[in-house]
Order: sequence, then C-alpha cells, then structure tokens
Amino acid sequence: MHHSDPLDHFFLGPKSELRTFFKEVVELVVDDYIFWRRNYHPKDPPAIPYRLLQSEGAEEYRGRFHQELFTLISDLKLDVPFFSPRYMAHMVSEVAMPGLVAYLATMLYNPNNVSLEASPVTVRYELEVGRQFADLFGYDPETSFGHLCSGGTVANYESLWLNRAGKFLPLAINLACRHEALDPPSRLSTTVWGSLNVPLPQAALLYTEFRRLCKCRQLDAQALLRRWSIAAYGDADYRDLVYESFGETYNSPVVLVPKTAHYSWKRAAGLLDFGRRNLLKVEVDDGFRMDPEHYGCQLERCLEERRPVMQSVFALGTTEFGSADPLPALLAVRDRLRQEGLDTPVHIDAAYGGYFAAMFRAGQRPAPPEIEAPWLRPLETACAALPETDSITVDPHKMGYAPYGAGALVIRHGFLRHLVAEGAAYALDTRGMNHEDLGKFILEGSKPGAAAAAVLFNHRMIPLNRDGYGSHLLKLCQQAQDFHRRVMALDLEQQAGGLFRILPLATPETNIVCLLVLPLAAQSLQQVDRLNDKIALRFGVREVESVQGYDYLVSKTRLDSDTPCIVGHSALAKLPRDAESLTCLRLVFMNRWVEGKTFEGCDYLDDFLATLIEYVEETLKQGAEQPELALETC
Amino acid sequence: MHHSDPLDHFFLGPKSELRTFFKEVVELVVDDYIFWRRNYHPKDPPAIPYRLLQSEGAEEYRGRFHQELFTLISDLKLDVPFFSPRYMAHMVSEVAMPGLVAYLATMLYNPNNVSLEASPVTVRYELEVGRQFADLFGYDPETSFGHLCSGGTVANYESLWLNRAGKFLPLAINLACRHEALDPPSRLSTTVWGSLNVPLPQAALLYTEFRRLCKCRQLDAQALLRRWSIAAYGDADYRDLVYESFGETYNSPVVLVPKTAHYSWKRAAGLLDFGRRNLLKVEVDDGFRMDPEHYGCQLERCLEERRPVMQSVFALGTTEFGSADPLPALLAVRDRLRQEGLDTPVHIDAAYGGYFAAMFRAGQRPAPPEIEAPWLRPLETACAALPETDSITVDPHKMGYAPYGAGALVIRHGFLRHLVAEGAAYALDTRGMNHEDLGKFILEGSKPGAAAAAVLFNHRMIPLNRDGYGSHLLKLCQQAQDFHRRVMALDLEQQAGGLFRILPLATPETNIVCLLVLPLAAQSLQQVDRLNDKIALRFGVREVESVQGYDYLVSKTRLDSDTPCIVGHSALAKLPRDAESLTCLRLVFMNRWVEGKTFEGCDYLDDFLATLIEYVEETLKQGAEQPELALETC
Repeated sequence: MHHSDPLDHFFLGPKSELRTFFKEVVELVVDDYIFWRRNYHPKDPPAIPYRLLQSEGAEEYRGRFHQELFTLISDLKLDVPFFSPRYMAHMVSEVAMPGLVAYLATMLYNPNNVSLEASPVTVRYELEVGRQFADLFGYDPETSFGHLCSGGTVANYESLWLNRAGKFLPLAINLACRHEALDPPSRLSTTVWGSLNVPLPQAALLYTEFRRLCKCRQLDAQALLRRWSIAAYGDADYRDLVYESFGETYNSPVVLVPKTAHYSWKRAAGLLDFGRRNLLKVEVDDGFRMDPEHYGCQLERCLEERRPVMQSVFALGTTEFGSADPLPALLAVRDRLRQEGLDTPVHIDAAYGGYFAAMFRAGQRPAPPEIEAPWLRPLETACAALPETDSITVDPHKMGYAPYGAGALVIRHGFLRHLVAEGAAYALDTRGMNHEDLGKFILEGSKPGAAAAAVLFNHRMIPLNRDGYGSHLLKLCQQAQDFHRRVMALDLEQQAGGLFRILPLATPETNIVCLLVLPLAAQSLQQVDRLNDKIALRFGVREVESVQGYDYLVSKTRLDSDTPCIVGHSALAKLPRDAESLTCLRLVFMNRWVEGKTFEGCDYLDDFLATLIEYVEETLKQGAEQPELALETC
Repeated sequence: MHHSDPLDHFFLGPKSELRTFFKEVVELVVDDYIFWRRNYHPKDPPAIPYRLLQSEGAEEYRGRFHQELFTLISDLKLDVPFFSPRYMAHMVSEVAMPGLVAYLATMLYNPNNVSLEASPVTVRYELEVGRQFADLFGYDPETSFGHLCSGGTVANYESLWLNRAGKFLPLAINLACRHEALDPPSRLSTTVWGSLNVPLPQAALLYTEFRRLCKCRQLDAQALLRRWSIAAYGDADYRDLVYESFGETYNSPVVLVPKTAHYSWKRAAGLLDFGRRNLLKVEVDDGFRMDPEHYGCQLERCLEERRPVMQSVFALGTTEFGSADPLPALLAVRDRLRQEGLDTPVHIDAAYGGYFAAMFRAGQRPAPPEIEAPWLRPLETACAALPETDSITVDPHKMGYAPYGAGALVIRHGFLRHLVAEGAAYALDTRGMNHEDLGKFILEGSKPGAAAAAVLFNHRMIPLNRDGYGSHLLKLCQQAQDFHRRVMALDLEQQAGGLFRILPLATPETNIVCLLVLPLAAQSLQQVDRLNDKIALRFGVREVESVQGYDYLVSKTRLDSDTPCIVGHSALAKLPRDAESLTCLRLVFMNRWVEGKTFEGCDYLDDFLATLIEYVEETLKQGAEQPELALETC
C-alpha cells in the first residue's frame, strides 16, 4: 500500500505521474524568461522583423530543426531507463524535479559562475550551497569554504591541491623568512620535518602571524608566499631549494588511500605528479572499510622513513559496498601520530555518501523509529566524526539527485584558498560588487551557474535533514536491508532444484547490495566468475533495439579474489583461487518506488529475484546438457 | 535594413522573436520524454496513485514549489542581459537554440558520459564531436582523439597531462627495457636527453614497436609502461631513478607560454607540480601575438641548459585582443630546434578562437567577398597551420554558443590516451557494447551527456564551415572592424570639446576591440588608469535593483604598462609610467544584431559611443569643477 509521503512529489515519477505539474512549471519558467527579454529596454525594436519569421527561409529552417530534433530524441529513447524501479544498477536515477526545473530555468539565463561579472546571482547560490554543506558536515560556515565543481573527481584533485598548499605553508614561511631576512613567526618550527608536520589549524595561525609581520614591514605577504611556495618550484626543485636553505631536505611525500579507493586517486597521482608509487594503500575489512590498525602501521612507516603525508583519504560510502570507513578509530590513529610528530590532513571522499549525513539531523518531523536500527550505527558514528576532518568531497549529482555535473568540495580551513589564488586581468575583479569572486580560488574556469541553482533549489525544497533527504535516504537504506533479507531467506533448494546459492557479500550499511551467485557444482573461482559475468551481461546495459529489451538492470563490480570479503567467505574459501578477480552483481537502490508492484502484482524485488533465479537455472541446465555452453566456456 | 539570413533563426532573439517556435519544440521534447517513461513496461501501474496527486499534501507541496520557484526566477531577473545587443562585454551571449533545446531534452534522460553503461547514446555523440573538431583543425579523425571537458581550463590541464605522458614515453620504454632485460626498439635513443626529445609522431612508432616486442615475449606492454612511467614515480623520484639507471638525469622540465597566457596556465604549474618558475614566458608584440624570435631564444636557452620542454602553448584568439599567435613562424622555430635536438609538443589554446577556423572552410554557399579582407589573413594562416600542432583546446561554450560547461580537447596523437588509462572495477568495462568507453582516458569522472548532445546538435544545425559558424563569426569580426573604424573616425574636437581622445589599442583581428580613453590633460598613466577604471565601473556589472539600470555593458582588462601596445603607443609614450598596469575597456562582439537600432533609431554602436563620450565629458568636467572629484581621487 502506498502512503501519502510528501517526498513522492519531488520526482516526475516512473510513469510521469507528475506530468501536469511538471509541464505547468516548465511553461511558467519559459514564459517568464521570454518576457524578461522582452522587458529589457522594451521600446527597442525587434532584431528579427516579424515578416522574416514567416519567410520561406524560416520555414525551411524550422523543418530542418524538427528533422534533426527527431533524430536526437529518437536516439535518446535508447538511453537507459534510470527513472524506473526496474533500474537498480549504478548510482544514478531520475533527478529531483526542483533541481531539474531550476537547471532548466537558469540555463536560459546562461550565467557563468567563474565570476560575479558573469553571474551576479548564481555565484551567491554556489557559496550558499557551500555553506549548507559545511553546516551539514559540522564545519564552521564562517571559516570554511565550499563550492561546486563539475564533479567529485575534480573535487578530489582540488582537495589535494589545497591540502598540499597547506601542508607546505610552514616551509614556505620558513623559506620566505630566511631569504627575505624576516623574523619568523614565534611558533614556527625551524626544522624541515617539523615544518612539514604542522596541523592545518596551527598553519592557519602561522599564516595570520606571518601576514601581520609582513604588514609591519610593509611587505606583500601573499607575493612572498607565492614566491617561496612549492607551487612556484615544483616538488623536485623545491627539494633542492630546501636542501640549499636548510642543509637537509624532505623525502617523497605520500598520499594514503583505502585499497579500494576510487580510480580517480590513481589518476591524481599522475596528474599532481606525486607518483602512483607514493599512493600508499591501506587494507580494508570484509565490508570494504579501511583498517585502522593497518592505517596506523602505514603512518608509523611514514614517520620512520620521514615521509611527509600530504593527505589521508577516507571514504564515506565506498563505491562497491556503500560502507563507511570507521572515522572515529582512524582519526584516533591520526591524533596519536600527531603526538609523535607526524601530521596528516584528512580528506573524506564522500562523493557518494555525503548526503547520508542528513539522516542524522533532526528536522521538524519526529524521528522515525528505524533510525535507531543497529545497522545504521557505523554510518552515524562516521558522520559524527566529520567535523574533525579537513576537507570533504560530496556529489550533488549522486545522492543529491541534481543534474550532472555537480560535485562539491568543502574545506574546513577556508584560508587555504588564498594560498592558491590566481587573478585574471580581464575579470575576477569585484569592485562594484559586495561579494567575493570564485574563479580565483578554484581549479576550473567557466562553469554553469545553472548547476548551483539546481543544487540550491533541491536543498531548499528537500531539506538536508530528516524532513527531506534524510527521510528519503533512510527509505533507500531500508530497501537495501529488505532486499538483503529476502536474499538471505531464499530457499533455492525448493525453487531452483538446489543447483546454486545467492550470496550477499556483506550486510548493507546504506543503499548498495552486492551479490554473488554460487553454483554448488563449481570447482573453482574461475567458474563462479564466469557465471556471474554472464549474469551481469544479461542484466547489464547492452546494444538494444528498444529499451523494452530491459526487464531489470543491475550493475557489476570486480572484486580482487584476495579481498577479505572473498577470502573470508565460508562458502568461497574452499574453492581454488584460480582467478585474480571475481565479477559480482551490484544493486544500488536509488528509486523510492522499488517496493511497488509490477503489472502482475508482484513486488519488483521479488520479481527480479525470480527472473534472476530462472535465468541462472536455465544457464546451468543448458551448461549441463550442452557441454560447449558449460561454465568453462560461457 | 535587415536581410533574411537563415542564421538569424538560430537564436531566440533579443526580443524573444522566436518564442512561438521555441515553446513549440520545448513542449514537444517534454511530452516526448514524458510518454517515453509511460511506454517503458506500460502495463506496470503508476507508482504514485492518482488520488495522491490530488491530496492535501500534494497541494501544499505544489504551493511551496511555486513559492520557491518564484524566488529563484525573480533572483535570476537580476542576471546580466547577455542576449541583448547592448551587451558587448565578455565572451558570453545567449546560447544557440539547437544547443539549448538539445541540452534540455537530454538532461531529462540524465545520461552520464563517464561510461557507456550510463550513456549508450551520448558517449557516441561526444566522440563524434571530437572527430568533428579533429576534422575542422586538420587532424586525422582516425588517429586523433577528441572529447569534451567541463571547460577549456580542464582541457588545458589535460593537454599537459597527456603531452607529458608522451614526452616521457621513450624514457619509460628505455627504463622498461633496461630493468626488465628487454631488447630496446631499434630506433630508440639511448641517452636521456635524446629520449626526452623524440617528436610525438616518432614516439607513436616506438610505442607500436615496444608493444610488438612485448607481445613476442608474452609481456604486458601496458603494465610495463605504467610501472616505468613518470606517473608512477612523480618527477622528483623519477629523476633519481633515471640517474640510477643512466648515470645522468634531466633538468627541470619547462612549459612555454605567451606572456599574456590565460591564468589557468599558472594554476596548471601548481597543480601539475612543474612549478610556476618553470613556466617560461615568451614576449608578445603590440597585438598580443607571441614573438617568434623570442620564442626561438627561449627554446635555445632550453637546449643550452638541457631543459626538456613539456609543451609550448600558442594562442588562437588571445583573451585580451582576440588575436592569433603567428603559428607558421612559431612552428618554423619549433622545426628548426627539432633539427638541433630539442623537441617540444605544441598545444594551441584555442578555447576562444577555435571556431574561427570554420570561416576558412567552404560550404555550399559561395564565399563572401569579405573573406578576402587583408585583416583576416593572420587568422587564416594561423588556422592553416593547425594540422602541424599536437593538441588543441576549444570551448563550445564560448564561440560555439553551447550552454556551459562545454570545453573540448583534441589530441593529434590519439594513442597518448592509452598511456594514461585507468579502469574502474565497477564500470568502464564495455563488453556487450560495440564501442570504446570514455572514462578511462579523461581527467574528469561523471559528466553530463547533455553537453555532448548540445554541442552535436549545434554543429548539425550550424555547420562548421562558411554555411554555418563561419558565416556568423565572419559577421561578428566585421562588426568589430566596423566599430574600430567608427572609433577612429570620431571627431572629439567637435563633439566633446577636445577634452579627450578614444584610442583603440590594436586593429581587431577577430571580434574583440580594446579601447583606452585618454584625457588630453592627463599628466601620467595613473590618471589615465583612474579615468578608465571609472568608466569600466560605469559600464560594468554591478549591484543593481533591476537590469533596466544597464544601458550598455562592456568589460575591462588590465594591461601591464610595459606591454608593447602601451609602450609603443605614440599618444601614451610621452606620459610618465607611474602605474604598473592600466585598465582598458574591452568589447567582445558576440551578438549578431549589434548593427540594429535603438528605439530612437540610432545604431547601438553609435549610441554606445555617444553615451560613453557624454559620460567621459561629464566626469572630466566634474573633476575640473570639483577638485575633490578630480582624476586624482576618483
């Protein structure tokens, strides 16, 4: 049975249920825009005389436009039906209607958030979104800095870029003082290693003191820091400079990431030039959560080898399992090492999981009893620890249901942005405006103001607490729990003749479930892999003539066969490990109507499981009857 | 008089002249999408029962939506009227209608071009756009590789990232052969300097041969190259590795840019960690064009100092003047140095100017006589030299009239993408699809498929030759010429009592004009600067109560007072250079209707000039009457 949940109205709906309302607001937005143009210097005559709009040329143009437009929208009909409860594959769904309408409305105005001159309205929106995220994560909205990027990957690069600037700031101050014959700030460590291990909150104080010292001497602190920063030299030359100045230098800086980190971190190692070898991996447990003990070992190794740690990356919402790294334990390790003289900025890759923090923020509605469920505790404690971190990536275009591309970076120590600032002669000058510009501080240049409007409108309509996102996301997490329970309760002995089992690979902590289909006759991991790979193709996106070819869509992931969730799995442990990795089925629940029913009256979840079981059964039987189709060759 | 130009129909128009047609296609697109949803498993029941759409909660939701939406669209009304011929400021305008409608249509489907699994349709579009640009610039569409980024800044970073991988490839092959006891490819230089100066086309051959050698030995060439690449080590550690392996190493690599390069190149030096000090500046002439002689000197210095050149950046369309670097002369210098043993990949920053190449491509319509104008020759020869370059950035969201964010990178040597490829376990696996994936090869992650559809639809409707963009852009360039002529012809003795002159700072080569207002009583550059700064504020974007407050909008730029166009200007040369830089007015012509008339029957251009003159006159008179408002204090 459906209940009237206000959140149901935030989407167009799987059957375009809200089409009348959607069309009404689209028309409003378009008309309102059209007449805005008309009303700017209304007496100026039209640029295109009316009679030309009726000319033969105009007619021909409209014909061609329609023809090409039909090609486009016919092509698009082969796109993936993300909106349907039958789509349980990747972290994508229909976008929320407020964001969609706001994007559309704002795109008409074409603001460019690189500069206030090109977006007097939407730059403010973007900074407001930044403050909302700061507030959600427990950073001080006044001293932190948040803004939108085209996506989480760029936000992750930017975290490294900013945290590197902060990490090397005390060294830059040291160099500036030495080379410009300035008295150093009082609390400044004078050793290279000490300078490279100043926690960012203390670096902020040093920065303030250094600027004060420069002001007394009528020097341009910003220019001095630019001159003596690592960004002026690059790591290799900087090590030489440091050696010349101190008689000692530093070793290759490292970045610590969970073993299962998103591939963008490897790319960052090449792009930001610290080297993939200096990307130290930390082991994960059977829920893909970073192991605090191993993290401690890695940090101790860095301390021993005197390697500066540019950043430690923890995940809130792993791509594979949707789990959260145990932040309190990891941060305790960071604090312990800090006492021993090794400091590391901590970045949270919450591109996917950041919005889950809204589940733990009270709104006006009473808290639902489900929020007390034990499986939610790891996520809650992780979210509660966010204020102690240094920067966070969150993607509104994932669990924020905003259109692409909308990622965000929030840094707790907002002053870092001044360390990387670049001006532009032709813009980024804000006299005449009562506001800060954006383009100076960010990696990207021109960028759509529409993305900011979309995210802000989503947040206004769907609050970042249990009245809005929190309630919706809790529902999705419960769906994953529910699906997990159904899989556990399957009696395949009865249903499928005892040929195989379906194993969930972990208890879901959020809205992702990973499954492995295990044929009981399997002799090796390779056979298991082949079957699951075949299933993944069957339920995956492929070349289709029509989207009607998809009954259910799920995604897949490949897990190394030596990951704890495979190695430690009782049913898999006995099989020879003759495959390096294993394809698993991955279901991401983003559609709130997955609990609904098909036209045959069956739950989508049950119907999917029945379809899956039937397919596996047939495949295995076919393999038995026709050995050339058997697992070895499929 | 207006003539019926088919290109007039590609825009909504300054007075929303095409509103009926625009609304018709928007409605078509929305309805078509709505019923696509309805038609996917049509018998599945609605997720939101009809009666709930009428419930009190739903009514309340719609009320709140409308209220918030009104706030949004009321805010947006304070945005800048980019669509108007009265806006002649930055490189922004209304977007072309095909791109706008395609973005809107595609955004509904929400494809994510990181992967074919999330965008089976629009990844193809994106690669098609890449081939179109390759074709426009004279690269071989089969062996080159082009794709979209969120903007030109990211495209510029990516050029460096890819060209660095190519630059260091021969060294990586050398290291792999030494450390893995492989016979090196026959043509491989065995010295460090030689390996770092292999032109990219030859590097491509080495790459092929290395893969062949590995295949014979049943080795994974890709894995070997990854292991021994600079991206695995980072520059600093790589220099050590090279020293250990060869007994010698290399000096700090450099990037060469014109002195006036976009600020993103400075940012790149910090981000990609080669250091701002290693960003070597090349002098420009009085039209902001790179000086081939000084470029040669800089390259010779690099040869002498044995510094590898990662990339030389030339501009096609400088941000300040819209001019083109003299590519044939610069490439001749590159070729000469190549003979002497120093090679440099050449990247063209055509973020702004790339589309101008369409002016020199024949369509079906006869070539207009204006294309033969002498002032177009520098641009034409620059465009003709593009096939000899290695990579090009072009921004469809600038002169391509696409919505933000749409930049593009085209690399001539497409194989470079394989050197930087990263996979993802959960996606970027394309079995089941007849196509190449994108996310493996690019800096960004999730990104809107809608951007690709918008650019492609624009290109389909407005061909990349003289029938489409070429004709439109030629018109804009002519407008700039026309405006320049009008300024030159001003008789201010008569009109403004001989108080001041208006100096164009260069003859426009494309669609940008820069002006300086020179008070004849000015005693120093500082006074000139103050007046122009005041004018820039008057005609700039500021806090307004309503857009009606803007009569004309122009932008400004700051020029160093030692740039050739200031130093060499006869009227300015005699003034004491007591200011480091000078504010100038900058007009970018992007609106095809700027030749139209205001309601008073005056040309917009003449009316703007009259408004400017009146304002300057008043300001100067006020300064004379009220010394506290004079130039010194304004």
